[in-house]
Amino acid sequence: MDNTMLHFSKDEILASEKQFRTNLINTVSGFKSVCLIGTTNTKGQTNLAIFNSIVHIGAHPPLIGFISRPNTVERHTLNNILSTGVYSINLISSNFYKEAHQTSARYPQHVSEFESTQLKEAYLNDFMAPYVHQSPIKLGMEFKQKIDIDLNQTHLIIGEIQHIYCPDYCLDKEGNLSLEKANIIAGCGLDAYFSTTKLARLQYAKPDSSPTEI
Amino acid sequence: MDNTMLHFSKDEILASEKQFRTNLINTVSGFKSVCLIGTTNTKGQTNLAIFNSIVHIGAHPPLIGFISRPNTVERHTLNNILSTGVYSINLISSNFYKEAHQTSARYPQHVSEFESTQLKEAYLNDFMAPYVHQSPIKLGMEFKQKIDIDLNQTHLIIGEIQHIYCPDYCLDKEGNLSLEKANIIAGCGLDAYFSTTKLARLQYAKPDSSPTEI
Repeated sequence: MDNTMLHFSKDEILASEKQFRTNLINTVSGFKSVCLIGTTNTKGQTNLAIFNSIVHIGAHPPLIGFISRPNTVERHTLNNILSTGVYSINLISSNFYKEAHQTSARYPQHVSEFESTQLKEAYLNDFMAPYVHQSPIKLGMEFKQKIDIDLNQTHLIIGEIQHIYCPDYCLDKEGNLSLEKANIIAGCGLDAYFSTTKLARLQYAKPDSSPTEI
Repeated sequence: MDNTMLHFSKDEILASEKQFRTNLINTVSGFKSVCLIGTTNTKGQTNLAIFNSIVHIGAHPPLIGFISRPNTVERHTLNNILSTGVYSINLISSNFYKEAHQTSARYPQHVSEFESTQLKEAYLNDFMAPYVHQSPIKLGMEFKQKIDIDLNQTHLIIGEIQHIYCPDYCLDKEGNLSLEKANIIAGCGLDAYFSTTKLARLQYAKPDSSPTEI
């Protein structure tokens, strides 16, 4: 270990100032998917919120999860999902990441983030939840399970993909989406956004051969 | 919706060829953190495996989760975590992403991925699990909980951060790590790796002001 390497023990992490710890722990787990989750309540009041805790659960069946926090604006999202059973996941491009970030402001419940930003609602194929018109890659999700995480009172929300919308120029014959062609961004921590440049795609790894670019 | 937009319904997704579906579902959820998880069994046999399902659970206490699949090489990782209670999470830089990808090859159980790649074990502060020497950002994790996801027989593995190692030139006074300064990569799907370029950091969003760069 070279001498420019810092070390934080658990005790030092726990003793650090709260905002410092929040930032450190939120950035130390690497780049993240950031997306907008669109919902509506049973009265038709829409909600849009940015999330950075999306996680792939499995492809067969097609399941995606996200972590919902106990006491934040994200509760509107969770309440709406539980009452309507559906939601949209909208990937964020470099064209509208600032508006996406703005949805994290604490608007009053009666104000839709759609109205207060330049993001437009889109309704597709009779799906109840609103999509984000500007998003190039949109998913229509059906709620499947809420798993409570007692360690910190968060929840893992798992949904099944019902609809996928994506640009045809991003999809290859093998089913791979080139997110970079749609200018999808990556996130880090709570406030940093990144464009990406492909280093390589690598062939399925085998014990008796070296990593090879596709 | 413009006419270059493709739509896949749930029925079309379920009817698609298995590898197509695997690729599509793995790429459609956005860019991901990719990392190497280092473990040892109780006999000192080490294991190293690449994961792309890391998810931030919370900062107070500092918790990180990942999804462990039911029947893959990753089972060695899970078995070792359950028997020793500790593991390392090592972020991947552009300097060694090909070796990191190579750990996904199905090596026999008695072969350590450390031996079969150019990745070197590092042991720090009497922590039992091996770190990856080459990784600029390393976490020492203590296992806290395994949550079974009955929908597809996967598991959410949650650990608490015990140690953080990071370069001092990456960390600012507020606790934010600049992953791009350490050349940390992002992943997409099962085989694509990306460098990143920062678009902006944005100030904490407020209802009465526009998104502002920091």
